[in-house]
Amino acid sequence: MMRARAFACLMIVAALSACRSEEPVDLEAERRAIEAADAAWLEAAGRKDLEEAVSYWTDDAIVLPPDMPPLKGKAAIREYVAAGFQLPGFSISWQSQEITVAPDGRTAYQLATNEFTAPDATGTLRTAKGKAVVIWRKEPDGAWRAVVDIWNGAGSSPPAPPAQ
Amino acid sequence: MMRARAFACLMIVAALSACRSEEPVDLEAERRAIEAADAAWLEAAGRKDLEEAVSYWTDDAIVLPPDMPPLKGKAAIREYVAAGFQLPGFSISWQSQEITVAPDGRTAYQLATNEFTAPDATGTLRTAKGKAVVIWRKEPDGAWRAVVDIWNGAGSSPPAPPAQ
Repeated sequence: MMRARAFACLMIVAALSACRSEEPVDLEAERRAIEAADAAWLEAAGRKDLEEAVSYWTDDAIVLPPDMPPLKGKAAIREYVAAGFQLPGFSISWQSQEITVAPDGRTAYQLATNEFTAPDATGTLRTAKGKAVVIWRKEPDGAWRAVVDIWNGAGSSPPAPPAQ
Repeated sequence: MMRARAFACLMIVAALSACRSEEPVDLEAERRAIEAADAAWLEAAGRKDLEEAVSYWTDDAIVLPPDMPPLKGKAAIREYVAAGFQLPGFSISWQSQEITVAPDGRTAYQLATNEFTAPDATGTLRTAKGKAVVIWRKEPDGAWRAVVDIWNGAGSSPPAPPAQ
C-alpha cells in the first residue's frame, strides 16, 4: 500500500513536470534568434539579394510603406523590393532598437530606425530617415519571419549635444 | 492495491487536466474584447475626452507619428493628444481592419485605416488619410491597451469601381 502511494505520488509529480516542461520558453534565446535573422536580413538587403531579402517575410506578410497602399503577400512585396533594388544608387539600412517577444515565444515586435537612399526626380540621391515597427512570427519551420512591416519619416533629429 | 492504483490513475488524470485547463485561451473572445476597447477609444476620441482617450495606451506605450520623433510614455502621449484636441476643427477617426491575437491571448496586433482633420498653416481644414498598426497588450487588470501605435500616409486611393 505504501509503495502504491509512493508510485502514485511519483506519477503525479512526473505528470505535472511533464506538462510544465512545455511551458517555459527561453524568451531571451528567441530574442537573440530574431536579432540574428534581422542581421542576416540586413546583410542580404545590403547585397541586394532579392530572393534572400524577400525570404525574411512570411508568405502572408503585409508591408505598409509611407504614402502607398499596403503590399499584401510575397508577390507584391517581391515586386516592390525588386523595383527598389533596381534604382541607381539605391541603398537601405536599418538599426534594430528593441525586440519584445510575447510570453509564448511565438510572436514578437521590433522597433527600429531605418535609412533609404534613392534618386529623386532629378536623379540626385536623397536619403530619407525613418522609424519602423516590425511584427515577427515564429513559423512552423522554426524560423522567425516578419509578418507586418510599417515605417514612417523620422522627423527632425534631436539637437546634437553641446560641444564640451 | 487495486484501489491505490486506481487512485494513482485518477490523480494523474486530475493533475494533467488541471494543468491543461490553464492552456486553452478563447482567442475569439480576446479579439472581441480588443474590438470593444477600440470602439470605446474611438468614441472617446470623438468626444475629445483627453483622459479617457489616453487611458487606452499602456503607461509605457510608444506612439510613432509620421515625421516626428517617437513619443515615449503616457506624459508625452497626453501632451501630443491634448495639442491635437485643442486645434480648431480637429477631428480623428479610424476603422479597424483586422485584429490578430497571439496564441497565448496576451498580445495582439491590429491593422487599421485612419483619418485626421486639422487646420493647415493658412487655417484651412485638411484631412489626411492614413494606415496604422497598433500592438495591444493585455494588462494585469485584464484590460487591453495599446503599447505601440504607428501610422503613415495612405497614398492614393485605389480607383473607384466602374459605375454599373
